[in-house]
Amino acid sequence: MKRFMGRNFLLDTETARDLFHRCAADLPIIDYHCHISPKEIWENRAFTNPTELWLEGDHYKWRIMRASGIEETYITGDASDFEKFQKYAEALEKAIGNPLYHFSHLELQRYFGYTGVLNHQTAGTVYSYCMDRIAEEGCSVRDLIRGSHVEVICTTDDPADDLRYHELIAEDPSIDFKVYPAWRPDQILNLDKDGFPAYIEKLGNAAGVRITDLGSLLSALEKRMDFFADHGCRISDHGLYRIVYREGTEEEADRILKKRLQQETVTREETETVQTYLMKELGAAYHDRGWVMQLHYGCQRNINTRAFKALGPDTGFDAMHDESSAEPLAAFLNSLEIRDKLPKTIVYSLNPSDDPVIETILGCFQAPGPVQKMQHGAAWWFNDHRPGIEAQLRSFASTGVLGNFIGMLTDSRSFLSYARHEYFRRILCNFIGELAEHGEYPDDPDALRRIIEGISYENAKKYFGF
Amino acid sequence: MKRFMGRNFLLDTETARDLFHRCAADLPIIDYHCHISPKEIWENRAFTNPTELWLEGDHYKWRIMRASGIEETYITGDASDFEKFQKYAEALEKAIGNPLYHFSHLELQRYFGYTGVLNHQTAGTVYSYCMDRIAEEGCSVRDLIRGSHVEVICTTDDPADDLRYHELIAEDPSIDFKVYPAWRPDQILNLDKDGFPAYIEKLGNAAGVRITDLGSLLSALEKRMDFFADHGCRISDHGLYRIVYREGTEEEADRILKKRLQQETVTREETETVQTYLMKELGAAYHDRGWVMQLHYGCQRNINTRAFKALGPDTGFDAMHDESSAEPLAAFLNSLEIRDKLPKTIVYSLNPSDDPVIETILGCFQAPGPVQKMQHGAAWWFNDHRPGIEAQLRSFASTGVLGNFIGMLTDSRSFLSYARHEYFRRILCNFIGELAEHGEYPDDPDALRRIIEGISYENAKKYFGF
Amino acid sequence: MKRFMGRNFLLDTETARDLFHRCAADLPIIDYHCHISPKEIWENRAFTNPTELWLEGDHYKWRIMRASGIEETYITGDASDFEKFQKYAEALEKAIGNPLYHFSHLELQRYFGYTGVLNHQTAGTVYSYCMDRIAEEGCSVRDLIRGSHVEVICTTDDPADDLRYHELIAEDPSIDFKVYPAWRPDQILNLDKDGFPAYIEKLGNAAGVRITDLGSLLSALEKRMDFFADHGCRISDHGLYRIVYREGTEEEADRILKKRLQQETVTREETETVQTYLMKELGAAYHDRGWVMQLHYGCQRNINTRAFKALGPDTGFDAMHDESSAEPLAAFLNSLEIRDKLPKTIVYSLNPSDDPVIETILGCFQAPGPVQKMQHGAAWWFNDHRPGIEAQLRSFASTGVLGNFIGMLTDSRSFLSYARHEYFRRILCNFIGELAEHGEYPDDPDALRRIIEGISYENAKKYFGF
Repeated sequence: MKRFMGRNFLLDTETARDLFHRCAADLPIIDYHCHISPKEIWENRAFTNPTELWLEGDHYKWRIMRASGIEETYITGDASDFEKFQKYAEALEKAIGNPLYHFSHLELQRYFGYTGVLNHQTAGTVYSYCMDRIAEEGCSVRDLIRGSHVEVICTTDDPADDLRYHELIAEDPSIDFKVYPAWRPDQILNLDKDGFPAYIEKLGNAAGVRITDLGSLLSALEKRMDFFADHGCRISDHGLYRIVYREGTEEEADRILKKRLQQETVTREETETVQTYLMKELGAAYHDRGWVMQLHYGCQRNINTRAFKALGPDTGFDAMHDESSAEPLAAFLNSLEIRDKLPKTIVYSLNPSDDPVIETILGCFQAPGPVQKMQHGAAWWFNDHRPGIEAQLRSFASTGVLGNFIGMLTDSRSFLSYARHEYFRRILCNFIGELAEHGEYPDDPDALRRIIEGISYENAKKYFGF
Repeated sequence: MKRFMGRNFLLDTETARDLFHRCAADLPIIDYHCHISPKEIWENRAFTNPTELWLEGDHYKWRIMRASGIEETYITGDASDFEKFQKYAEALEKAIGNPLYHFSHLELQRYFGYTGVLNHQTAGTVYSYCMDRIAEEGCSVRDLIRGSHVEVICTTDDPADDLRYHELIAEDPSIDFKVYPAWRPDQILNLDKDGFPAYIEKLGNAAGVRITDLGSLLSALEKRMDFFADHGCRISDHGLYRIVYREGTEEEADRILKKRLQQETVTREETETVQTYLMKELGAAYHDRGWVMQLHYGCQRNINTRAFKALGPDTGFDAMHDESSAEPLAAFLNSLEIRDKLPKTIVYSLNPSDDPVIETILGCFQAPGPVQKMQHGAAWWFNDHRPGIEAQLRSFASTGVLGNFIGMLTDSRSFLSYARHEYFRRILCNFIGELAEHGEYPDDPDALRRIIEGISYENAKKYFGF
Repeated sequence: MKRFMGRNFLLDTETARDLFHRCAADLPIIDYHCHISPKEIWENRAFTNPTELWLEGDHYKWRIMRASGIEETYITGDASDFEKFQKYAEALEKAIGNPLYHFSHLELQRYFGYTGVLNHQTAGTVYSYCMDRIAEEGCSVRDLIRGSHVEVICTTDDPADDLRYHELIAEDPSIDFKVYPAWRPDQILNLDKDGFPAYIEKLGNAAGVRITDLGSLLSALEKRMDFFADHGCRISDHGLYRIVYREGTEEEADRILKKRLQQETVTREETETVQTYLMKELGAAYHDRGWVMQLHYGCQRNINTRAFKALGPDTGFDAMHDESSAEPLAAFLNSLEIRDKLPKTIVYSLNPSDDPVIETILGCFQAPGPVQKMQHGAAWWFNDHRPGIEAQLRSFASTGVLGNFIGMLTDSRSFLSYARHEYFRRILCNFIGELAEHGEYPDDPDALRRIIEGISYENAKKYFGF
């Protein structure tokens, strides 16, 4: 019986323990993809209780509360912060094997020093304990980031954003970690959404370009990418419902786009033609700027219409898709490669069945350079649990070169979620340690250390050029 | 070397052994989904040899016999009962890692007290041994059910069924376990089958309604559901080739249905329009009655035409499908949720790749209540083996709240198959025990006991309202 | 800590070690599917350095080099053989968990007696070591085959091939292993390829038939199959982009084929109609000759157009597909079964998600005979690594009768790759041993030996009739 989430949590062998404590534990964190607010970093928001930290925006936690039959009033509603904490504790107790069980206890350990168990009986005690710690030591955004040994944060930003808070952060010498914007142009591609023309107008205003056709849209995008680059951006991020690849001429794309900008509806085929055209232009632009392109797909968003109307997006009502994506993904990457315009690319699978498909497609587009160009992204979202992380590592290793992996990201809205990097590193060290202990890799401490340090920190640093 | 299928079979840790023997082993069984015959329960059929029990209708066993190249005469043909038993033993011996190896030996242990090995050499001895036991003690349906500690059985029944045997069972005070019908309206949805109009006429006769259009069909269905409810039914079950979601108006559905009732053929699109319409009506009707809706899909049935012509359906010639189902599944559930008519629902995956898709979709439709409303059903059919059951538990736990799971069903045609509940509970206790021993959950015997008792028995009891 | 790739590599239990060393290690090899050159066997090519052996044609190795950012000059370009070896060693060092790590070290152990580690520091030493061994003992194709205890090799051959080298090999009494051709008619089905009419003309010339329509094509195919059969062929092999099943009449197929032979283009639907027609004819022809039909599908080939233009096919630019295939696969097999013309068939999954789909479909088409007729092929290509091989064994065992499996093939272009049979056997013995040690199968040394010997050697021998 191992101690519950003790010092050697998830570290099953001597080699795993050595690798984690010697090589991984103290490395800084590069969190190259997250959803935290630059405004809250700038304002250095102070949290006053654990419910604000945990339950204000974390729809993962909301989902397990709903799955436990808890009333919405205790989740996103008017119940008191303590009541919400209590209800969460009750749901958590039954969530054996869920990563939130581990994340929550890791966060209690690392940020509050609480090493006991959170359950329906202890919730009150734990809440008071955290309140005392907050009262004594404060709990501000920057303290949390610094305390987590974070070196770089890349937020997620709309192309029309003014990046004001990024500017303020960059100018403040007291902020000793880096915060960069990331370019997330999903709205530019959503011709099928009602708000598309209005969004394009907003984008034009941000760029100082009147967007009326394809040419002016591309011109506005170039200006905004330059603006983002001036603020340190070097990563784009595309959240796609599906990977589409429908070739069309410039003329076709222009005609369809104009039609849509004039508030007309367009067909799914027309939408995909424009999306394909724009994705190819954007990919080439990333390549020319040395940016990394992140692609993730296979998500059905807001599938519960009642809940969407009541609570809006990003509230825990998204699910996996299961469409075939191998052919359009390969075709899209190839269309850039043909023109020698394929940027460094990270492809994330949301549906774990896509793992080996993604690995084998990316393996066809590698290129000379200091770090592996095409990367299968870390297990995330519905997959950021021990079995999911292990499966992604196994998949990466089995068909690729695991030592080249750029590792973990939080993809989180929470300032406590850096503990997930520790979680990932423990699983990584266990995975690597097991291979060595099992006689599948030499017992070579230096070679193993290089692999662990690379995946935990060094590879990402080189890959993004931080 | 562990003893072959001994007392601690599949229980690898001290905690697992404690959980099974202390908490799970003695709980009653709620078998909320099976295919046993209420007639045989009522008549209390007595079995005269092990071949009747094992090989009369179990197409799982037939499949491994065929895969071993055995002639059909020894499977479904005219060979003697002992010859069939002998041939089965020969196939079984090579089926290392197949769940039938375990089910067969568990059944020999639990129902006959035989703890040795069945193989080509011992088949004769084992057969005689079982015959002696049957001669001494008898072997009747009710004895088998009672001896298995079964509390509730839900059979599978056609809406046109007169439920005569259910009535007789309910009236017999000597039957101290409950037997309820379950509503399986597949034939109502099969517009593409030749026999559809004839079936609908039969249904109308049962309901006392002349079915000529959509309105009269719905009216007949309401009457039949009331009839089933009067006989204790609280579960429906849909075996779907694929999940379809094709919206259509009442007028369209009515027009298509009428056309089909007049023996005309309808297109696939037309069929799907009516199916969608009816599924939405049925789902709402289940909701209003407090029934549970079971959905399973992704099965290609009777794919071997020669065998189907020779042997008929349910003889071992079904296989998995692999179509995309995420979008129609989400759309169907949403269509009910929008109207606040979504019933408690269990979705089973036949293709294990669908596991995380189903989990994440169901997670978007949870609702307040005593037991988790939307449930990913237990691993079954082609997946009811140790790796499959473990994978379903892991999937459920990783993205949901495993403590809320309603657990196992047999889905069986055999009166010996209650041993599969023991099989499931052993794997469950091992899974949970491993998490505790591995430091992933606290070593809290009470919390662990609540989880085990919930999944093994209590959750199902509350969920169905038995 | 187990010794790195020592005597008990991958053998975790006492039973596994006993099974491997007692039963599996010394069995001969039947390599029923590979891509080695009969010309090189006949000419008994002598290799002069390890780079020729390892890196001349093995695109698996090229892929991990590319994934490590190595310039193409060191992969397929003009760099010296030692430089290429050095670069491969550098890539390999980071490829922890990749099967090439194990294959490479196994080959160094078995063929050169080098038991150390290959990495960036030792590459020079290892290269010299191998060169010395080659200088001392030579390193010829036939020595490698004989030294690997290979009994039968089936190469992969085009229907238009003159099988000259097979004839020469067969006539040479000094060659004491068997080399047979395998029938790989992919080009006959590729109506969508530019070179189709030219290929058909070449085929006609080989058969002595002027091919102008369906009838003459089928007649030419019959003649070529007879020719292949005369040279010992008993296996066909189909590498399909996707499984298609589109029924058409003889007239339709004839009309489309004629059109295509007159250099006209045909639609995808027309192509699939002819492909289906031909596959059904070929399947029946295999059945009549007692040949085995191999099907593998779900591969996107040459997806990187730039690389294809520079390097041609089979250079490491193929990837998995993820299309739905369950319905056409079942329909195709059924179309042959209906006519009682279904040959022995091996279906390989390239995408591991297809494993259980394939198992369950094949389970519907078994037939009486000495060895299981329908076989789910061994994990190969992107899946021939420990987790992939274990997954295929688990899948086969869980839904079928593992003792009937015909086991491993190399699918390789390398004369060193027989070490993969050892790799497979170790994993197999570990898998089987674990089941016995875990109490899931009796500790019956004879029964376990029969299973191991069957899968390693005996089943294939009987299945193919060698």
